[in-house]
Amino acid sequence: MDLIKPKTMPGVMELLPLEQIAFQNMLDTIRRTYERFGFLPVETPVMEYTKVLLTKSGGETERQVYFAQSTGALQQERQPELAMRFDLTVPLARYVAEHERKLIFPFRRYQIQRVYRGESAQRGRFREFYQCDIDVIGKDKLDLYYDAEIPAAIYTLFRELDFGKFTIHMNNRKLLAGFFAHLGIEDAQQQMLVLREVDKLDKRGRGKVVETLLAEPFSLAQDTVDQLMNFVGSGEGRTNRETLAALRELGIEQEQWLVGLNELTQVITQLEQLDVPEDYVNINLAIARGLDYYTGTVYETLLDDHPKLGSVCSGGRYENLAGYYTKSKLPGVGISIGATRLFFQLMDAGLVNLGQNSVKVLVTQMDPSLQEDYLQITAALRAGGINTQLMVEGGKFQKQLKFADRSGIRFTLIMGEKEKAEGYVTVKDLTKGEQLEIPRDQLVARLQALIDG
Amino acid sequence: MDLIKPKTMPGVMELLPLEQIAFQNMLDTIRRTYERFGFLPVETPVMEYTKVLLTKSGGETERQVYFAQSTGALQQERQPELAMRFDLTVPLARYVAEHERKLIFPFRRYQIQRVYRGESAQRGRFREFYQCDIDVIGKDKLDLYYDAEIPAAIYTLFRELDFGKFTIHMNNRKLLAGFFAHLGIEDAQQQMLVLREVDKLDKRGRGKVVETLLAEPFSLAQDTVDQLMNFVGSGEGRTNRETLAALRELGIEQEQWLVGLNELTQVITQLEQLDVPEDYVNINLAIARGLDYYTGTVYETLLDDHPKLGSVCSGGRYENLAGYYTKSKLPGVGISIGATRLFFQLMDAGLVNLGQNSVKVLVTQMDPSLQEDYLQITAALRAGGINTQLMVEGGKFQKQLKFADRSGIRFTLIMGEKEKAEGYVTVKDLTKGEQLEIPRDQLVARLQALIDG
Repeated sequence: MDLIKPKTMPGVMELLPLEQIAFQNMLDTIRRTYERFGFLPVETPVMEYTKVLLTKSGGETERQVYFAQSTGALQQERQPELAMRFDLTVPLARYVAEHERKLIFPFRRYQIQRVYRGESAQRGRFREFYQCDIDVIGKDKLDLYYDAEIPAAIYTLFRELDFGKFTIHMNNRKLLAGFFAHLGIEDAQQQMLVLREVDKLDKRGRGKVVETLLAEPFSLAQDTVDQLMNFVGSGEGRTNRETLAALRELGIEQEQWLVGLNELTQVITQLEQLDVPEDYVNINLAIARGLDYYTGTVYETLLDDHPKLGSVCSGGRYENLAGYYTKSKLPGVGISIGATRLFFQLMDAGLVNLGQNSVKVLVTQMDPSLQEDYLQITAALRAGGINTQLMVEGGKFQKQLKFADRSGIRFTLIMGEKEKAEGYVTVKDLTKGEQLEIPRDQLVARLQALIDG
Repeated sequence: MDLIKPKTMPGVMELLPLEQIAFQNMLDTIRRTYERFGFLPVETPVMEYTKVLLTKSGGETERQVYFAQSTGALQQERQPELAMRFDLTVPLARYVAEHERKLIFPFRRYQIQRVYRGESAQRGRFREFYQCDIDVIGKDKLDLYYDAEIPAAIYTLFRELDFGKFTIHMNNRKLLAGFFAHLGIEDAQQQMLVLREVDKLDKRGRGKVVETLLAEPFSLAQDTVDQLMNFVGSGEGRTNRETLAALRELGIEQEQWLVGLNELTQVITQLEQLDVPEDYVNINLAIARGLDYYTGTVYETLLDDHPKLGSVCSGGRYENLAGYYTKSKLPGVGISIGATRLFFQLMDAGLVNLGQNSVKVLVTQMDPSLQEDYLQITAALRAGGINTQLMVEGGKFQKQLKFADRSGIRFTLIMGEKEKAEGYVTVKDLTKGEQLEIPRDQLVARLQALIDG
């Protein structure tokens, strides 16, 4: 029989077990933090009806959707009725609209699932990747407080993830729109185009962006561009309180501007009350988020020591979640982490600890005639809640010790005739590089304490 | 704009938040137990190359595979290059063959992911469902001990899942094949057909099965059928030790029979050494597992009080995992739980506790002027690791209390002017139906203790 080459498609992240453990730890931390902030779990099917998923014309090609067809449908050469989710926002909208009457609002959900995009294959681009989203959805209205709660959750999360210092950059779309109106750029479409250029400040640099805005088709006046550049730079080198004061001093009376400024002020104030240190939050008037979708507060999160990774966690406030599916007005605020890309990049940068096996204890088999004892010790450790593996194959003892080492298993248990007769077990601690003798009847408790400590 | 009807495809289990929490608890218990038994996590992409996934001719239609095509591939009307996994065994085989040189054998993996089958839509049949698998894979050989370790893990797991008394039924395919050979049914194909009939004993009853085996095309002799029926019933009403003795007393010398009997005897012995109570394990010579795949020990697990659910956890020993992909011989033993169907059935039977919210504390807002205090209390509780929600909208106080009740949130915190002035918080405990007054500076520690206790 000819062998089939075993391989995955490109653009997926398949991990070896110790890598998977590290990735799981990251997902567990995300989930635990989301739950701590009172978000409830939701999972949706990977497939949705095509007509539900692809609500916008042209979106299909843009988003490189994967369609799904069962054997029967394929044979009938029908147009695909099903497609795979490309984000978690559209499924959330469908979910909330479908179950509206059974949900309690404000509805706080977290969702940690994989999404699918037919990206062209290139390094760091994924066709299958985890998104980890939180959103709070209101019915008719949603208190501005949640615009502070979302970054408070992100602050706690990235502290726990421990990837070094980070900064949550915040802006407000109403403030931006108000400032544009003040500059005389009233047309929303034109505002969007200018915003898109402003969004490139980080990548293209100030000179190039100014050049573009002065030239056709923008043709902005030099004074307008100067004001714009001063404005977007007004958060730099200032505390948030100072930035807010500077904005107030501009004396702009435009209505949206005033609303946006008040919103930003309240969010910053409530973040302080939620004990989020000032140093981790930065009013950054240059960020706009590309999407049409956001209408108020917007967020981007950068790792201070790894600016090249770009924003690792982005989101914002939107006016209506599910307008395609329900007449109810459902405003919300949320944020998303692309966990697969983030993990891949952190692993690339050597920032992921791959040494920790979820197995904590290896029971070795020094003397095959004692196998029954080894089985009983293994069962007792597991009954005590300790992740334990038994090296039942035996084999050369040095090889067994090497196995623990290669596998990153912290504790190795050794018991021969002598230990058995004297009622103790020798325990090698890989982490501390030390060896202990523990009475057999204290083994579970002592190991529990060592693992917890 | 016309609204699009928000709905999922049939054959998927989409849950409301409190149901999802209960389901998550079940998956968490499964994962925790698998990890305790030293299994390592693996996740594979949902899509595999069609030629990798569909190794057997005709399997495509049989398994009702879902094919996946990105927008571009669809437009070119190509035959689908990708398909979605229909189980976790084929992806495991591909994974082990692909990463063979980087894995440490015996390779112990658990995998908890969704699989996809284009089933016809009917109640209780799922097109998307979770499988929760464990397997131990050896290179060239795999110690028989693992045939005991797998049911030991299942025993611990179902004790923790707490769905009532259950029984792990075990048999050995070599013992079965040896007995057939002893009866003169030597042809493997014929053995399979008879086994398939024997497998129906539970559903069709003894009378019908006997009738079928006597009639064409089986045309077995009455004496042969009698011996067969006595044999498959020989585990009934006996302890496992008694069954093994009865089998030995048959005095059969056929080689496979003897190997099978020795294997079964060792597995039963080692299960005792692993502290699995006899009462939870039953040698059941009537079970065969439909698949061609298994070659030694086979398992089925039944909930004693819910026999209609059928086997909730099945598996066995196989000779070679990945023959389609590698020349290495990779014997293994494993078991699978169909978690979606199990949860659905348990929910149907009213056996799922849906009352427990993952949010443990609701901070109410009795007096809007104290909002800053409420925010600070919320932040402190979360910093103390307590899942907390703040009722920031305020509103009628009775409505806030009702919200906690409806949501199944155990503790409700109440603080007005009086409490604030006197430095305490009133805590309502929904579970115990009592009310406590806790000094504000002890709040985190006291609530932690109440939640853990």
